[in-house]
Amino acid sequence: MPDEDGHPSREEMSLLTVLNALSDPLRYAVVGALLREPEGTARTCASFNLPVSKSTITHHFRILREAGLVQQVDRGNSRAATLRRADLDHRFPGLLDLIGANL
Amino acid sequence: MPDEDGHPSREEMSLLTVLNALSDPLRYAVVGALLREPEGTARTCASFNLPVSKSTITHHFRILREAGLVQQVDRGNSRAATLRRADLDHRFPGLLDLIGANL
Repeated sequence: MPDEDGHPSREEMSLLTVLNALSDPLRYAVVGALLREPEGTARTCASFNLPVSKSTITHHFRILREAGLVQQVDRGNSRAATLRRADLDHRFPGLLDLIGANL
Repeated sequence: MPDEDGHPSREEMSLLTVLNALSDPLRYAVVGALLREPEGTARTCASFNLPVSKSTITHHFRILREAGLVQQVDRGNSRAATLRRADLDHRFPGLLDLIGANL
């Protein structure tokens, strides 16, 4: 079962759900931006400067989190996200390389 | 430019558009079914027995065709689709393997 924040375990991830999460241009851009950072980098949702409302940003990060693409951690009054590289590379080998080659 | 039937060239394919096409369960199932066939197999749209109307099937195949996932060919009064394996493997190496491993 996903944890209390909706993060699926590695085994619970589904490629269809991951592809769905990646199929939105804003979410694809977030994953691409995290992919360009050093491994383990945590960025706040606000740092991506997405041109949409705060509630829409929350929605997009929920989709990313529930698909297993990002891990969100509380940071006082904001949340930061890291890319779940090791889990994604293990579960869907080659996927992040593909995205990295198509940014 | 895409050809008159909307098939993009290999170079015109975009990963985001391909992911979007794959993010629907019915379209993912069509690609998965073609992937299980011998290379070059052409199947009519009706052969997939999708539980939706004919116009919806036409819509889904248009999305697959315009993303570059399938090549559609006229066959008298129906159309058949083949998976563009070589183009996809060249443009997005590893993508079809990922799908094949997650059917």
